[in-house]
Amino acid sequence: MTNKTLSVFFGLLLCCSSFNVLAARNVILIIGDGMDDQQITMARNYLKGAQGRLTLDNMPMRGVSQVLTVSEQGEPVYVADSANSATSMATGVITSRGRIGTSAGTDLPLENIVEMAHAKGLRTGLVATASVTDATPASFVAHISFRFCENPESINGVQYYSITLPDCPQYTLAAGGPGSISEQIAASQVDVVLGGGSKHFEMNGEGSDKTVRALAEENGYYVIDSADQLDSAPSDKKLLGLFSPSHLPVRLRGENGRKAENAEPSWANQVSKYIGSVKLPAVMNCEPNPDFAGVPTLKQMTDTALARLKNERGFFLMVESASIDKQSHERKPCGSIGEVEQLNEALDSALAFAANNPETLILVTADHGQAAQLIPETSLFAAFGIAVFSPGKFARIRTPEGSIMAVNYATNDFAYEEHTGANVPVFSNAVGVGLVPTMLTQPQLFELMRDYLFE
Amino acid sequence: MTNKTLSVFFGLLLCCSSFNVLAARNVILIIGDGMDDQQITMARNYLKGAQGRLTLDNMPMRGVSQVLTVSEQGEPVYVADSANSATSMATGVITSRGRIGTSAGTDLPLENIVEMAHAKGLRTGLVATASVTDATPASFVAHISFRFCENPESINGVQYYSITLPDCPQYTLAAGGPGSISEQIAASQVDVVLGGGSKHFEMNGEGSDKTVRALAEENGYYVIDSADQLDSAPSDKKLLGLFSPSHLPVRLRGENGRKAENAEPSWANQVSKYIGSVKLPAVMNCEPNPDFAGVPTLKQMTDTALARLKNERGFFLMVESASIDKQSHERKPCGSIGEVEQLNEALDSALAFAANNPETLILVTADHGQAAQLIPETSLFAAFGIAVFSPGKFARIRTPEGSIMAVNYATNDFAYEEHTGANVPVFSNAVGVGLVPTMLTQPQLFELMRDYLFE
Repeated sequence: MTNKTLSVFFGLLLCCSSFNVLAARNVILIIGDGMDDQQITMARNYLKGAQGRLTLDNMPMRGVSQVLTVSEQGEPVYVADSANSATSMATGVITSRGRIGTSAGTDLPLENIVEMAHAKGLRTGLVATASVTDATPASFVAHISFRFCENPESINGVQYYSITLPDCPQYTLAAGGPGSISEQIAASQVDVVLGGGSKHFEMNGEGSDKTVRALAEENGYYVIDSADQLDSAPSDKKLLGLFSPSHLPVRLRGENGRKAENAEPSWANQVSKYIGSVKLPAVMNCEPNPDFAGVPTLKQMTDTALARLKNERGFFLMVESASIDKQSHERKPCGSIGEVEQLNEALDSALAFAANNPETLILVTADHGQAAQLIPETSLFAAFGIAVFSPGKFARIRTPEGSIMAVNYATNDFAYEEHTGANVPVFSNAVGVGLVPTMLTQPQLFELMRDYLFE
Repeated sequence: MTNKTLSVFFGLLLCCSSFNVLAARNVILIIGDGMDDQQITMARNYLKGAQGRLTLDNMPMRGVSQVLTVSEQGEPVYVADSANSATSMATGVITSRGRIGTSAGTDLPLENIVEMAHAKGLRTGLVATASVTDATPASFVAHISFRFCENPESINGVQYYSITLPDCPQYTLAAGGPGSISEQIAASQVDVVLGGGSKHFEMNGEGSDKTVRALAEENGYYVIDSADQLDSAPSDKKLLGLFSPSHLPVRLRGENGRKAENAEPSWANQVSKYIGSVKLPAVMNCEPNPDFAGVPTLKQMTDTALARLKNERGFFLMVESASIDKQSHERKPCGSIGEVEQLNEALDSALAFAANNPETLILVTADHGQAAQLIPETSLFAAFGIAVFSPGKFARIRTPEGSIMAVNYATNDFAYEEHTGANVPVFSNAVGVGLVPTMLTQPQLFELMRDYLFE
């Protein structure tokens, strides 16, 4: 080897190792709240046809995540809520339902990946179609014992259908705590926070004559409330966008607002299920939700976040399509389908960003399963000639490819359906191939993101 | 390069290319009937704990399969049955519910992978915990328009709870057809057929004074009916094992045979769901099913099949754990859990075989989703203090790790639950990594197996 060859060799070595050390690494974690395989298949059937593919479906890595929950006493619980499952992904610690970034039993704050990223000089962002104070985004920024302590009033307990939900007295500022979730967001370092929930910022902060929004502004946030302001915010400020009083309106709804309904058995069928007949809910179309007009799409919010977060040190961004879950709780299949579509569009943006910024790990997952099930439009037992129908509520949706898709909701008889406990899908872009195992737990998902960003 | 070096080089080249051409390639397709992610998670929670792993979970490749069904007119149908979905995997053609190896609308026979394997000189085997005439195994050997035309009597229609189910007159021998499913199995070339269903072979063949079993023996089958005969069959005969009159009894059952049950709301709660109380089904244990004594396990049958199928030309083996589905239809979660365990044990055998026979592609999948859902043991809405419970039937199972797992069945009000339409899991061993895409359709699964075996 000549001296010249040697110097080229070491030059290359130096160049490339320096490049590796300095290249910004980014993580985009996209959470479809309640987006289990039933929800994905419903959305695929409607949006692309049974043989079609969502953007999700073309991801090069696909596996599952175990959703883990414990009781306050640490015993296994087989169905999660969004608070404990988001906490697992944000902090790597399995906790109990309702908790935001705090430990079961001991009620201690758990350091989250956003805080770790700030400590390392990375930028961070949280984008959600929910209120930004809702369980999923909150778990990536706040620490509090109960998810509904979202603002300075509800931290003292909230009346909900005449029931007093738990309060979080130990978290008030007066008790030396960090305050409610909206106050913790206002005091945070997160560079971009976009979603709904302005009502939680309009009241005065605890013991303050300023609104939580004003406190956020004092802490360096430029606060916006409409989609057309998304790209006008000054680049030297943190950005807080609150585009709706609570969760953002969804894109699709059932015809005239219809949702899943009960079948109406005839009188004879109510006497014996082997006789009589049944009137099934009429077939319906999905239609655009008029309330969605003017609301920023998840894709628009994601684009703004990506543009603001890109920097030479890297970033962590969490994007949540929240109302796949919320619409399923309310038995609104069209609503859920539209929000899976929103997630896929946000994923398109993330993939386009990663194409130009190769050190970007994109992960897509759900936090927990939901109630909806695709059931046969014509019962498997139709040949028996008796009325066979769901004891819950169901919808019969006309799909663009011209068939009828039946969706069932029957986990309970309450105003809102339950979650379900199946393991949930995980997807990643090419960066995750070989890095993301085909099965992992939600805490392992945290570890994987942490190691990718910081090691 | 010296002459000696060259000759070693070409020797190696020759050896290895010959080896590649001549090495026997084997495919083991393991189907968990109805084994969707809810079923897998239920079984994992019970058998290994929420944080544990089934053999399945350690497979290096995991993806999903789209389950595709059409009507007789070719329109998309969003929920499959085992007949059309197994036909998709066996023949690569999407068909209508109830059809076994025949085309929707045109009623034509579809060549299956077992027939292709025979034509190429490979051995074949079908192992099932169902009757061997049941939809899944039948689709890999037979061609008939309706799945319940299982024997020479039912081909002319069968009475079932006073309903006459469809017949298959065009498939009778008299009409120039291939006869019922059991007759088609008896006349087949499949080297190993193991499962239940002896009742379909005990009656005389159509127009014959010999039983279907005797006709099978005439066609070269050694017929056995007990587990202890599994390893005693002569190696120069084909093997037909029929270990039970119908489907094989399952391994686990609910305490004293209990299954999922209705909640019992109080009188007041029946007047208004916002008042009164409810008596939930009592917590139960799973226990060994006494009827399982003496029944060969799926693993034992798989071991026998593998030992008999191994040969220098390769083989195709389908192994079905059938009663994950059948027990879910009957709302028996313990039963389904035991049959997922059986599938995992059979997979252990397949993996051990592949360790010694590296050109063995193992695929594990489900044919369609099922009704069972993991729901919260304590409702997400328990804080409201009113009775919240499933409108269907549910079970509360004590798990070995000491918690209670609630399983809901509420797709209909009939004696048997419906299937569901979510995409289903696909797993493969290391041979499938890079070969099996993270998402594919059931016909593509067929193409993949065909190409691996024959190209």
